[in-house]
Amino acid sequence: MFDPDVLGLHPHHDGSALYTEQIRPVLGGAVRVWVRVPARTAIKEVLLRTTPDGDVLYRRAAIDEERTGRALGGYGAGDVWWYADVPIRNPVTGYRFVLRGPADESYWLTAAGVVGHDVRDTTDFRLVTHDPGPDWARDAIVYEIFPDRFARSAGSPEPSGLPDWAVAADWDEDTVIHAGPLTPRQFYGGDLDGIIEHLDHLQSLAVTAIYLRPVFPAESNHRYNATTFDLVDPLLGGEAALKRLAAAVHARGMRLIGDITTNHCGDAHEWFRTAHADPGAPEREMFYFDADGGYEAWYGVPSLPKFNWESPLVHERMAAVVRRWLEYYDGWRVDVANMTGRNREVDRTLEIAAELRREVERVRPDAVLIAEHNYDAAPDLDAGGWQGTMNYAGFTRPLWAWLRGPDVRLPYFIDVPGNVPSRDGRNTLAAMRAFAAGMSWTSLTRSWQLLDSYDCARVRTVTGSRERHLVAAGLQATLPGTPTVCGGSEYGLTGVNGEDARTPMPWRRPGDRDEATFLAYQRLLGLRAAEPALRRGGLRWLHADADTLIFLRETASESLLVAAARAEHGPVALPLDAPLTGVYDAADLTPSNGQVVLPAGAAALRIWRVGR
Amino acid sequence: MFDPDVLGLHPHHDGSALYTEQIRPVLGGAVRVWVRVPARTAIKEVLLRTTPDGDVLYRRAAIDEERTGRALGGYGAGDVWWYADVPIRNPVTGYRFVLRGPADESYWLTAAGVVGHDVRDTTDFRLVTHDPGPDWARDAIVYEIFPDRFARSAGSPEPSGLPDWAVAADWDEDTVIHAGPLTPRQFYGGDLDGIIEHLDHLQSLAVTAIYLRPVFPAESNHRYNATTFDLVDPLLGGEAALKRLAAAVHARGMRLIGDITTNHCGDAHEWFRTAHADPGAPEREMFYFDADGGYEAWYGVPSLPKFNWESPLVHERMAAVVRRWLEYYDGWRVDVANMTGRNREVDRTLEIAAELRREVERVRPDAVLIAEHNYDAAPDLDAGGWQGTMNYAGFTRPLWAWLRGPDVRLPYFIDVPGNVPSRDGRNTLAAMRAFAAGMSWTSLTRSWQLLDSYDCARVRTVTGSRERHLVAAGLQATLPGTPTVCGGSEYGLTGVNGEDARTPMPWRRPGDRDEATFLAYQRLLGLRAAEPALRRGGLRWLHADADTLIFLRETASESLLVAAARAEHGPVALPLDAPLTGVYDAADLTPSNGQVVLPAGAAALRIWRVGR
Repeated sequence: MFDPDVLGLHPHHDGSALYTEQIRPVLGGAVRVWVRVPARTAIKEVLLRTTPDGDVLYRRAAIDEERTGRALGGYGAGDVWWYADVPIRNPVTGYRFVLRGPADESYWLTAAGVVGHDVRDTTDFRLVTHDPGPDWARDAIVYEIFPDRFARSAGSPEPSGLPDWAVAADWDEDTVIHAGPLTPRQFYGGDLDGIIEHLDHLQSLAVTAIYLRPVFPAESNHRYNATTFDLVDPLLGGEAALKRLAAAVHARGMRLIGDITTNHCGDAHEWFRTAHADPGAPEREMFYFDADGGYEAWYGVPSLPKFNWESPLVHERMAAVVRRWLEYYDGWRVDVANMTGRNREVDRTLEIAAELRREVERVRPDAVLIAEHNYDAAPDLDAGGWQGTMNYAGFTRPLWAWLRGPDVRLPYFIDVPGNVPSRDGRNTLAAMRAFAAGMSWTSLTRSWQLLDSYDCARVRTVTGSRERHLVAAGLQATLPGTPTVCGGSEYGLTGVNGEDARTPMPWRRPGDRDEATFLAYQRLLGLRAAEPALRRGGLRWLHADADTLIFLRETASESLLVAAARAEHGPVALPLDAPLTGVYDAADLTPSNGQVVLPAGAAALRIWRVGR
Repeated sequence: MFDPDVLGLHPHHDGSALYTEQIRPVLGGAVRVWVRVPARTAIKEVLLRTTPDGDVLYRRAAIDEERTGRALGGYGAGDVWWYADVPIRNPVTGYRFVLRGPADESYWLTAAGVVGHDVRDTTDFRLVTHDPGPDWARDAIVYEIFPDRFARSAGSPEPSGLPDWAVAADWDEDTVIHAGPLTPRQFYGGDLDGIIEHLDHLQSLAVTAIYLRPVFPAESNHRYNATTFDLVDPLLGGEAALKRLAAAVHARGMRLIGDITTNHCGDAHEWFRTAHADPGAPEREMFYFDADGGYEAWYGVPSLPKFNWESPLVHERMAAVVRRWLEYYDGWRVDVANMTGRNREVDRTLEIAAELRREVERVRPDAVLIAEHNYDAAPDLDAGGWQGTMNYAGFTRPLWAWLRGPDVRLPYFIDVPGNVPSRDGRNTLAAMRAFAAGMSWTSLTRSWQLLDSYDCARVRTVTGSRERHLVAAGLQATLPGTPTVCGGSEYGLTGVNGEDARTPMPWRRPGDRDEATFLAYQRLLGLRAAEPALRRGGLRWLHADADTLIFLRETASESLLVAAARAEHGPVALPLDAPLTGVYDAADLTPSNGQVVLPAGAAALRIWRVGR
């Protein structure tokens, strides 16, 4: 009954306001949910299925007479709306729907879409009683800054003032060394006051929050191997500069997010040095020392000793750290969150995340807490700890594989060894849906939607062309999830790995700036900021083939149709009986015979508003 | 590269001895695993991926020169075998493989098969350090007995000797009342000594273990609402009869498995009566009483008050119960395991399962512990508690939907309200793979493979024909998982729901026995018992279309090919360059041009041995 080639006729539900009552679920309460069944679909019965206290419960859904027959979001006056109330019995309530046809055909509607066979509960929709995080994060556009490479103020130390580990590099003359022992030592001298000088640039991109890579003193330019968590690196301007930066950011109504590693520290960190030098020191228990003085370390790298979260001192000290810097920060991005508290038979990640969340909220109830995770973050979300993840798995990697250039040769596909594979639009959609279905709508929308970061190749290098890069940027601006721009990608900067991506910003190198890319970023992110449907609307997939991906973002009052193409493609007919008004690189279209036909074209992203 | 229509050319791995070193995984150790890549498949590189301590680790697999080029299991001399060692860092180690083609094509090989896009870790293969359970359970064939309906000995009480709740019914004259207030009261008087008289029948079916429904005193024929766990119902012969039964079963080298409810008890249970009558009684804390004397109950049914596992007394008493009866039993089937210890914000199911496992093993190290679960049991398995589940979700429901009769009209699809849907072979395979991929190979093979039980309709009623019923029985006998026969289905008994399925056995009603069905059960289960490949072999799917499902069960020394068809079907060509020798309802076949063609036919199950 449900042709995978005609997604637009599939029944739909998601966690957005059009489909889910926007109330905070509470134990003992209920949340009303709706299923939209497109006209021309012979569904005779809809059941809600949920699993309170570990058993299954079915409830018959009813037709919502008020919604049925209305063109909600500008289309679908013939659609039938069913509703049911999901009882909230547990902190995480999974649910899905049975759809029944006239001849006992039975389908599941899950967060991964409509499926004709039984499936596990892993793709159930989810309602969560835990606080989802601050309101400001729902609409945020984040910009990632690598302090040494973003901007250098007049106060940045001269080469003569650098410590021994640092090898001075000239901002506009020296090439980034992206592999080898000099990589972490190359010092361009970006600092916190430098950032203040470029806040206009960020705001011109509609950015609302800065994610600042580590600023603690360290013996490297990336500063993940901090020597202390008590100070801001004097090379960056010290705590006074962080205070100035926070004030400047906040004065513009923007937010500032810090970066903390909870899994390990550097071997030059004061805690570890004490622990290593003195087996009797209280800090000894903070790490996993063996009888011979060896210790557990991140991937076995001795310079990154792993914290032992069985130690009360780790809890006490890390809690103090995350609280202390919220004097300036509006939250944290947690580095290597996926390993934190996991070691052999111990797995306390969820407890630790919830504990850090409580600590953060003690001093800053509206702080964000976002977990780095390179693969399957879903088991770590929706548990009252991390509010979202860096969505490499569910967004970045699928997009890279769809939009990679024909000649790209990279040693890693984010973290998977080997070149970026080339995958078609159907596989891209399948991957995006698979990961999105693993988390609540709340966690999905608060997760960071990255095209790249300072830990992987640049999207421009992966796509190999401005056109495909801008398709990626368009999807970043229009899909659910928090758009997170890696500073410099808005100018089309390149890089074959994370270290290579750390190019000093080309403020004084206009030849290194692709202004067409920048202007497109401004328009796309500006649209994101301006259109409620792009920020908070539902997501309904309409079509996927090898070269095109088409979807709706929809609220009760407006729907935007986004069509992405990675290559030359033919016309695409959609079962949508409504006119389309061009919004972004798109001409107005008129339906006929109950469908609208998107014209053939080249690699591009186009946006229409449904209706006139 | 991997055509879903030609599963036989997909690379393969599973947890069986041919693909996984058969050692108990230990923390700090490693387990060698192999991937078989069929000839004609251009795979240039295989990587192992695993996630120790929450991060990802890739290892390059190597070609096993010793295996490559050999016809293992009788076929595939051109196949390439890759191997890698999976490091065991955590109690549950997930892993999967990257398969790379010559042009950077990249696929995942997971427990759900080969997939061309990124997927979550939910379908990873799993290695588990916990004890898998006793060796005898690996090869078991289980037979489920409902004591009141299996056999009545001369010592069973006469109607005049029955308690008030019981309404005497004549074994061969009275029809089972399957709905209404009389349903639990209808008393046929089957007893434990009656079972002893029919052990020959069980052994003629190659049965090795009896799963006995509850035997505690209760005011119902199903005895799930026990009044005490300290006694065997005198109506069944009391503890002395259980002792006789256990002795008789054990004397034949068979096993006896009991049935215990850990989620709730009946409201006539002595613990609850005390708790209910006296708010000051120690038993009060064993239940969830509210201030008004109300209490939590299973699905809100007041006669089944839910245990509060926050109470130490529940732990103490239930531990004593599960230990005590292992004097006779070889393990437990745990009723409503899926709800046990789950209530609102509390979820202690895994802890409780592990605790009960420890208690059981204190007195009987070789006991089984199998969890009832109607839907997605995977999150409750592989955690050191339950050794397997009653696999309704991954076996029964998919088979029912594939083999249902055209005219069947039932009110429930196991637990899903509404009729059994009709689904094709591809959807059936997809469902089986989805659930199998959620658990370790160990848990899958120890889970109970049911065609039906005393809690749902009979498979004969669902399939509506002997032919389709025997296809189901053939799949039960040949797929991984412990065949579990609901007593009476071997005679083709019918029933529209679980209560209706509780027909007294037709020992003296030859007209109610379908002897052709019985003979087929004997042959099929006999094959299961005789063929190592059917008990411990790997499972490799070769083909699925609407009406046929074809797979291999394979060891290093033999492979059996099983072809199931639900209807008239055409010939099926398989990419298998080996002769096939008929084993069950099948004529010998010879390959040509690198493939073997299974002939057209009707609804049937056929088995061949690969090779001559």
